[in-house]
Amino acid sequence: MSLRLGAVQLLCRKMSTFSTVQRGAEATESFRLFFRNGNGAAISPFHDIPLLNDPDKHVFNMVCEVPRFSNAKMEMATKEPLNPIKQDIKKGKLRYVANVFPYHGYLWNYGAIPQTWEDPGHKDARTECNGDNDPIDVCEIGHRIGKRGDVIAVKLLGALAMIDEGETDWKIICIDVNDPLAEKLNDVADVEREMPGLLDATVRWFRVYKMPDGKPENKFAFNDEFQSAEFARSVVMETHEQWKALVNKQTSSELAISNTCLGNESSVDSEKADSTVSAAAETGPSAPISASVDTWRYC
Amino acid sequence: MSLRLGAVQLLCRKMSTFSTVQRGAEATESFRLFFRNGNGAAISPFHDIPLLNDPDKHVFNMVCEVPRFSNAKMEMATKEPLNPIKQDIKKGKLRYVANVFPYHGYLWNYGAIPQTWEDPGHKDARTECNGDNDPIDVCEIGHRIGKRGDVIAVKLLGALAMIDEGETDWKIICIDVNDPLAEKLNDVADVEREMPGLLDATVRWFRVYKMPDGKPENKFAFNDEFQSAEFARSVVMETHEQWKALVNKQTSSELAISNTCLGNESSVDSEKADSTVSAAAETGPSAPISASVDTWRYC
Repeated sequence: MSLRLGAVQLLCRKMSTFSTVQRGAEATESFRLFFRNGNGAAISPFHDIPLLNDPDKHVFNMVCEVPRFSNAKMEMATKEPLNPIKQDIKKGKLRYVANVFPYHGYLWNYGAIPQTWEDPGHKDARTECNGDNDPIDVCEIGHRIGKRGDVIAVKLLGALAMIDEGETDWKIICIDVNDPLAEKLNDVADVEREMPGLLDATVRWFRVYKMPDGKPENKFAFNDEFQSAEFARSVVMETHEQWKALVNKQTSSELAISNTCLGNESSVDSEKADSTVSAAAETGPSAPISASVDTWRYC
Repeated sequence: MSLRLGAVQLLCRKMSTFSTVQRGAEATESFRLFFRNGNGAAISPFHDIPLLNDPDKHVFNMVCEVPRFSNAKMEMATKEPLNPIKQDIKKGKLRYVANVFPYHGYLWNYGAIPQTWEDPGHKDARTECNGDNDPIDVCEIGHRIGKRGDVIAVKLLGALAMIDEGETDWKIICIDVNDPLAEKLNDVADVEREMPGLLDATVRWFRVYKMPDGKPENKFAFNDEFQSAEFARSVVMETHEQWKALVNKQTSSELAISNTCLGNESSVDSEKADSTVSAAAETGPSAPISASVDTWRYC
């Protein structure tokens, strides 16, 4: 399987100028952001965008779900066909992450690495906690504010082992390989040198960001310390293996694994993929967003 | 004079639903935001919007120049007829305030109190420094992100005596009287109780915000400490007296004092005021803004 996936990924990579198409209306439950490949065909960002942008140079792909300084908690809908980005819903309400003083929204471009999965049935040997059932999360620290749906070529710089209500939820620190600072950044210590305070703020942000919503502090393994770039790559490669087991149905799951590139029994043709997009809600204008989203909260 | 001004201000207040009209193009030197009163007639926000929104309740007016979380340094053009808001220019370039980590743009809705002026020929007895030749600056700390050009009714909560390159530049802390927290906030100690850390961050922000542009740290009188709400009101009322001397030509200045409400020799009729607006650059679409504005800078 791993050989066949490799060949298919090479094919996918040749069509790797991705774009997005919106369905539904922003700031409503109907909002969906679907992905298209360079040929304009609908794809799944979770399964059809390759893990690696450039295997020789350790360059990974990242899907930007939440641009820096924004609050709407957007994420790939892992249980919906073609996994469009949608806004998370908690207790029946669209979810916005609070502005915990002095931060405005997210501290980085936040998103996920495609073709990874933290298997909830797999206990991470390092954290002794099981996976959180999502693709692995990344924080991209470059100077540019990303756009929702951007596919960014990144290098990995470090890893933070967040424990969220007993589940392992790795946070991988990375930077756009085209950022002016990218050459200077190769590991955790480089980040601290070039961006003093960013890593401490990142731990604090993840510790407290759910507290305004009445949740407890998040905890971290490894004494709250960031692990190395090499460690980060090994974590990501392990979750890539868990994703392979998912799409090969070696692991049972309720997640949607329809795809257009993998050449397996869940693959669909472009006509079927396009019909999934067409079947989604009509595109419409954004709903108004409450000013309460802008409020600063003090922890 | 003070009596006549009082009567005229009452007239102005009766037309106190203000609106704005854009001329020129955003993110260019041509951008201007003119103000209109409730009758749709062009006015000067510096001279024609009353100092007080409600004299009996110590409620002042504030003109929002820079919304919270934004970077473009916008301010009333004190030397241009009718004093529209324009973007400040330093060394021939449009000025954007840096994102000093971990802050995003300004920490509050920032602006000025109309009908005030810090006379550069007047030495402030408290700071032993002269005025900075501008209307007095205010930081509005309510939950709502203001809009550029909003006229907000605020109550004053405290004052910070910034010394910027030897000039007195008071920073008045205030809150929108319609903010849900406004009732609980009446003085500096209330701000610290309800918004712990905001005042310290405000001092730090003003101390360092020009450093990424190669300027030295700003200093503060009174051992960096905020002064009381009563003190803030007395500072503002003093600068209102200095403004009166300006518009009565008791102080010589190169500032533009044309107005529509004051009934003095610099007053213009609505036709003349409208022609000032019409003579400004044609309204056009915003120019692109460099991603470098979004970069975090580390001090």
